[in-house]
Amino acid sequence: MHAETLAVTRVVRAFADCWNAHDMKAFGDLFASDAEFVDVVGLWWNGRAAIRDAHTFTHRTIFKRSRLTLDDMSLRWPAPHVALARCRWTLAGHVASDGTPLPERRGILLNVLRKDGDRWRIIDAQNTDVIPGELSRPP
Amino acid sequence: MHAETLAVTRVVRAFADCWNAHDMKAFGDLFASDAEFVDVVGLWWNGRAAIRDAHTFTHRTIFKRSRLTLDDMSLRWPAPHVALARCRWTLAGHVASDGTPLPERRGILLNVLRKDGDRWRIIDAQNTDVIPGELSRPP
Repeated sequence: MHAETLAVTRVVRAFADCWNAHDMKAFGDLFASDAEFVDVVGLWWNGRAAIRDAHTFTHRTIFKRSRLTLDDMSLRWPAPHVALARCRWTLAGHVASDGTPLPERRGILLNVLRKDGDRWRIIDAQNTDVIPGELSRPP
Repeated sequence: MHAETLAVTRVVRAFADCWNAHDMKAFGDLFASDAEFVDVVGLWWNGRAAIRDAHTFTHRTIFKRSRLTLDDMSLRWPAPHVALARCRWTLAGHVASDGTPLPERRGILLNVLRKDGDRWRIIDAQNTDVIPGELSRPP
């Protein structure tokens, strides 16, 4: 595997590894200080601190025992130091805000990464749930 | 406004203009031939033809009389010829697949654009519905 492909793949894999270790300090370090993140319900966080703090809260509550699996990564290079990494994911073991266990769900995550110095970081993430059998949001 | 900012803003505005004119030929031309697009329910289209054909279908049916308004654009430049454009949107006038009118809805659209020659095109789009009052997908 090409060295840059390997480096970008490692960062994307680390997204899931930090999630599954519920280590939000390490999770936050994957992002650039000015990164943006839009989650599956359209919460739009600006900056590493906001991304880390939001995930710290959810990993103490609804995602505390959740497990994220990434699959089917598509990788493209719009510029030498910019990568688009899109993967399908499956989330298991999450709960509603009242603690009720929820069924496994799937989605698609886009990460945009940039190499600054010798390190690739996520500069943007947008996440979308997969709702099977629909063309657009159901009524 | 800087010339490149103006050019990218025009392409993003044209996304909404083509949508509202229901002109899916012009809509498709905004995308690079190898663009990817993930819609709000996680349909993942690969290539301009797939993006154009899917939107041609929805603009004959559920989006036939819909109107898309873009707002709050955030623009970033990870490389000189690459732009990330994120906007909030409102969609009105759409219907369910049985023709039932649906309420106005909101979302967030990320477009990644690249300049090839003298023309900016969308190389990637990912769209997410805003579901107010939730941290993650409701049960």
